[in-house]
Amino acid sequence: MSERASPVIGILGGMGPAATADFYRKLVLATPAVRDQEHPRALIWSDPSIPDRASAYLHGGASPIPGLIDGARRLEDSGADFIAVPCNTAHLYLEPVREQVDVPVLDMIDATARALALRHERSRVALLGTAATVRSGIYRTAFECRGLLSVEVHAAEQQLVSAAIAAVKAGDVLRAAELLAPVLEALERRGADAIVGGCTELPLAAEHLMVGSTFVDPSTVLAGACLDRVRSLTPDSVLKGPLAS
Amino acid sequence: MSERASPVIGILGGMGPAATADFYRKLVLATPAVRDQEHPRALIWSDPSIPDRASAYLHGGASPIPGLIDGARRLEDSGADFIAVPCNTAHLYLEPVREQVDVPVLDMIDATARALALRHERSRVALLGTAATVRSGIYRTAFECRGLLSVEVHAAEQQLVSAAIAAVKAGDVLRAAELLAPVLEALERRGADAIVGGCTELPLAAEHLMVGSTFVDPSTVLAGACLDRVRSLTPDSVLKGPLAS
Repeated sequence: MSERASPVIGILGGMGPAATADFYRKLVLATPAVRDQEHPRALIWSDPSIPDRASAYLHGGASPIPGLIDGARRLEDSGADFIAVPCNTAHLYLEPVREQVDVPVLDMIDATARALALRHERSRVALLGTAATVRSGIYRTAFECRGLLSVEVHAAEQQLVSAAIAAVKAGDVLRAAELLAPVLEALERRGADAIVGGCTELPLAAEHLMVGSTFVDPSTVLAGACLDRVRSLTPDSVLKGPLAS
Repeated sequence: MSERASPVIGILGGMGPAATADFYRKLVLATPAVRDQEHPRALIWSDPSIPDRASAYLHGGASPIPGLIDGARRLEDSGADFIAVPCNTAHLYLEPVREQVDVPVLDMIDATARALALRHERSRVALLGTAATVRSGIYRTAFECRGLLSVEVHAAEQQLVSAAIAAVKAGDVLRAAELLAPVLEALERRGADAIVGGCTELPLAAEHLMVGSTFVDPSTVLAGACLDRVRSLTPDSVLKGPLAS
C-alpha cells in the first residue's frame, strides 16, 4: 500500500467513551476530505476502566496514571505518531505519561488557551469542568499565560456542572442540558465573553442550549491540533489546505 | 489494574471514518452502563487509506484485502479479543482476513438477517447499499437463508443511493437525505416491510427522514452483537443485564 507511511493519529480515550466517539466524529468532520482515502489514519484506545480522574485528584482514589501509561504505550507500539487525550481532567496526569513514551502527547489545555487568546485578547473566560479540573488551576494558569481574565464559577454552580457531567456519562444529555442552562445564563450575566466546556462531556450537552457568548470546546480545538500535526508530518497531503471549520 | 483482563472489542474501521465514529457512538449508547468503568474497552483501527471496497469489487480496482489483514493483525496484536468491521461492502472480503487472525471476526450481514427474521418472519425486505454490496448478493443470500423475501431496488434508485453514500462521505448528510427520500417512498409503496441501510453511511442520512416502514441499521445490530460477545466473555459483568435499546 502506497500510503503505508502516512501518519497515524493516536487517541487515548474512554474517559468517557461517549466523549471519545464524539471527539473522533469532530476530527472526521474537521478534515477537509471528500473521499475516505484523504482522511488520516487513526488508532483509538478506549479504556473506560481507567480510574476516575476527578476522584483520584480530589479524594486520593485509585491513580489513573498506570492505565494512561499502558494506553499510551499500546498506541505507540501499534504505530501512533503522536497522541491526543480527549479528556480534560486526564491532563493533570500527562507529565508522567510523556516520560514513558517517545511520541508527542498533545496539550489540549494550552491549545485552547492559545486559540482563545487569538480570538479574544484580554477577554473574560469562564471555565466549566469537573471540580478536579477547576480546582487544579491548569486552565487558569494557561489562561493567565495567554493574557486572559477568568470569571469565577460559584460553588453552587459547580455542583450543577458536576451533575451535568454525570448525566452525560449516564447517557442523559437532555437532563445535562437542563442542569447547565442556569449556569451559562449566570456566567453571561457576570460578563463572560467566552465559556470553555472544559470537560469532554459538556459540549454534548451544550449543543442543546442557546449560548449567547462564545462556547469553546477544547476537544474541537484538539481535533484541529491533530490535523495541524498531520499536516506538519505530511506537507504534500490534501490536508495542507485550509481546514474546514 | 484489576480490570486488566476485561475483554477488548476490536473495531476495524475507517470505511468510512464518519461511519466508524458513528458505530462507536452506537456501541457506547447501547451499553447499559451508568459510569465510565462499566463500559467495555475498545481498540479502534481507523484506516481510511484502505482502497475503496466497491471499486475493487465492481471495477477490479486495488484490493482492500492487504489493508484489511494489516488492520486485523494490528488489532489482534494489540489485544483485541474479537473484531467487528462496521462496513458492509468490506464483508465481501472478510474470509481471507479470518484466515489470517486467530480472533473471531463478527458477521454483520448474518447478524442483521437473523435480527430481521426474529422480528418479521417471512417479511419483505429492501436492501440499500453500494452497488457492490447489492450486486454481490451477500445480503440476499443471508435473507433467503433466514426465510425473508426481497424487494428489488431499481437501477435509477440505485444511482440515488450511491449518490447519497458519496454525499455522506463528503460530509453532506442533508443532501444525502434529500437523495434518499424518494427511494424510501417508492420502496414502501412497493410493499417493503423493512428497509436495510446496508451501507454504514446510510443510517446517518436516514436519521433525517421520516421512514414509515422499519429502517434497520446493520451497524446497530453489530453493536449489539459486540455487547453479546463481551457478555459471553465476562458472564459476571454489568453487561449481563438486558441491553438498552
